[in-house]
Amino acid sequence: MFTFSCPVSFSITCSSSNGNIQNHGDYRVNINVNGSSCTRRPIKHHTLLNEVDVKEGSTSLSAIQFLENGHISEEKIRQRIPRQKQLVDPYRQGLITERGVGYRQTVVVRSYEVGPDKTATLESLLNLFQETALNHVWMSGLLSNGFGATHGMMRNNLIWVVSRMHVQVDHYPIWGEVIEIDTWVGASGKNGMRRDWVIRSQASGSTYARATSTWVMMNEQTRRLSKMPDEVRDEISPWFIQKQAINEAVPDKIVKLDDKAKHVNSDLKPKRSDLDMNQHVNNVKYVRWMLETIPDKFLERHQLSSIILEYRRECGSSEVVQSLCQPDEDESFANGVQQNLLTNKVLVGGNGRLGSLDINVLTYGYTHLLQTQNEEIVRGRTRWNRKICTGL
Amino acid sequence: MFTFSCPVSFSITCSSSNGNIQNHGDYRVNINVNGSSCTRRPIKHHTLLNEVDVKEGSTSLSAIQFLENGHISEEKIRQRIPRQKQLVDPYRQGLITERGVGYRQTVVVRSYEVGPDKTATLESLLNLFQETALNHVWMSGLLSNGFGATHGMMRNNLIWVVSRMHVQVDHYPIWGEVIEIDTWVGASGKNGMRRDWVIRSQASGSTYARATSTWVMMNEQTRRLSKMPDEVRDEISPWFIQKQAINEAVPDKIVKLDDKAKHVNSDLKPKRSDLDMNQHVNNVKYVRWMLETIPDKFLERHQLSSIILEYRRECGSSEVVQSLCQPDEDESFANGVQQNLLTNKVLVGGNGRLGSLDINVLTYGYTHLLQTQNEEIVRGRTRWNRKICTGL
Repeated sequence: MFTFSCPVSFSITCSSSNGNIQNHGDYRVNINVNGSSCTRRPIKHHTLLNEVDVKEGSTSLSAIQFLENGHISEEKIRQRIPRQKQLVDPYRQGLITERGVGYRQTVVVRSYEVGPDKTATLESLLNLFQETALNHVWMSGLLSNGFGATHGMMRNNLIWVVSRMHVQVDHYPIWGEVIEIDTWVGASGKNGMRRDWVIRSQASGSTYARATSTWVMMNEQTRRLSKMPDEVRDEISPWFIQKQAINEAVPDKIVKLDDKAKHVNSDLKPKRSDLDMNQHVNNVKYVRWMLETIPDKFLERHQLSSIILEYRRECGSSEVVQSLCQPDEDESFANGVQQNLLTNKVLVGGNGRLGSLDINVLTYGYTHLLQTQNEEIVRGRTRWNRKICTGL
Repeated sequence: MFTFSCPVSFSITCSSSNGNIQNHGDYRVNINVNGSSCTRRPIKHHTLLNEVDVKEGSTSLSAIQFLENGHISEEKIRQRIPRQKQLVDPYRQGLITERGVGYRQTVVVRSYEVGPDKTATLESLLNLFQETALNHVWMSGLLSNGFGATHGMMRNNLIWVVSRMHVQVDHYPIWGEVIEIDTWVGASGKNGMRRDWVIRSQASGSTYARATSTWVMMNEQTRRLSKMPDEVRDEISPWFIQKQAINEAVPDKIVKLDDKAKHVNSDLKPKRSDLDMNQHVNNVKYVRWMLETIPDKFLERHQLSSIILEYRRECGSSEVVQSLCQPDEDESFANGVQQNLLTNKVLVGGNGRLGSLDINVLTYGYTHLLQTQNEEIVRGRTRWNRKICTGL
């Protein structure tokens, strides 16, 4: 069933609501930090997380500290992972929704999350998807150490890997805007999980963006994909719902580009700051590499309306990456037609909404590929709308 | 007095509490978005920002939308800038402190704000400094359009530019940790402003980081530094306090590096995603370029404890940048001595705290320079502690 391998840079999961909480004994578990081992211990609570008391069930990551006697001890720092289901997180402004299985977080778009046009960047939205997914698992009470893995997954040395992601953005929120992000999970085949998101305006309730993603499990040691163990299915399946953010009856197939692609960026090297807590190139960096391969002139005049990513292989910190992209049609022709349309205010039929006017004229597509020495990392498809503020 | 010019990529300011609110008439002000003009209009409120009603005093940034009749109209999107002083911002978890002139915001460290070691990156802290400073001005009721400028500054075509920044980090908060960020402003000479920050653990109250910065005003058109007009002084001086986050009795002088510097990264080009809402290279990108010039081997084993940045000139989107850096002493020697110390657990005298053991052995320094064709952009000094988790 699984014929591909995937990166672990965007590993998000969901846990159980069935109260099946595992006991890790006295909670001294060796974990790896930068290749060396520290010790995890129970936390001494200085504060409560929220009204739902988590005194009994949080973990902490220890840091080494020099005590006054010159010996080495440990300083408690609070990762605050609860071991029981939480309903409200006032610090993150999150709450459980969808009859106990979904999660909603209210977020204000920050100054550094917007681009030159003062609207949130696609990268910021992807970051917020990751953040809300992890907070969803966090609230579930079954987040283990690591990047969204459940306790059952940890016992089986399993991590989540994303195999596909599809994001549609109708409207980019602006700096200072309050948005609500809903996220939930569902089944995907026998061994996979789907995770969806919807971003809405907190003020009007309008939907700004939707996303869906597919996840499978990988053995952390062998790096091979794994079936979903029964104990993990028991943990996560109570959280599954059928609702889908994006109706993908016939998902787009993304063709594989070759060296004839029109635009190529070679010699892309991950920096230390591009690595996430799994020591892998962050998912957002992939998207940045893809989009930077599109000519600046096109990017200046267009706004991304959708992106589909198909992950094939993980990308480590020492690899050199090549980014290819191919427009569906000639970009200069596309720009020209749109320019005329806007300059002359020629607005064609239908309900007048951009994108439904004449999709062949006003939206454009690119096919993308990131690869290392001819091994595919991720394929992509993007669609773009002309920026409609220009010239009006 | 002003012999240098500065970048505008990190423009933060403060406004008045004296009720000196300016009326912009019907609030139709042309603003520039990506070089084209849109129109700013009063907001139709669907929601209240907080208990302090802002119904009468918010602005909105308009976006063009196609209506059902096929004509072009404007959609109201809420930038929610209040025109009266606010005391509490529940969405951002911010409040006015320091007898009405300081600002504190509670923040949870997000999953994408941490590095491979699961602690917040320096870049994330710098982003949060920018965010809280802008939110401070936002709460003051005198934020105009733009990046932290007051209404008086806008009338005089002035923007803030940072001339110096000094950050000290004792402890990096971890993923999921709740922190409190305090910020306030003070006078700096006759024409400048100081802005300080302190980051504390919300749980224990321990201070994790401190920062101070100096700001001057630049004419947006002429790009020349400006004296502070009286009307701006009247706006901001009621917010000034004397308290300083870092005692800088004798500030470090940063020598200018030349081509003999040990480490050089050339041909650094800003990408579109590196630009902020002022179309300038973001301050955080400067820091990333500086730190990426330090050898990976050193970065893996050390943690930044302080950074000083002296800004000389703004950097536009089309410039090619060179990053130079020079260690205070040979890095391999430094690494070797520390390795032995840690392996053998030789802990020397004093109160046993790292950094006070023997500062010549356990901390290291680098001098930095970013320049374009021999014109300086920013000078820097960094100090580093050995990561103490390794090998224990």
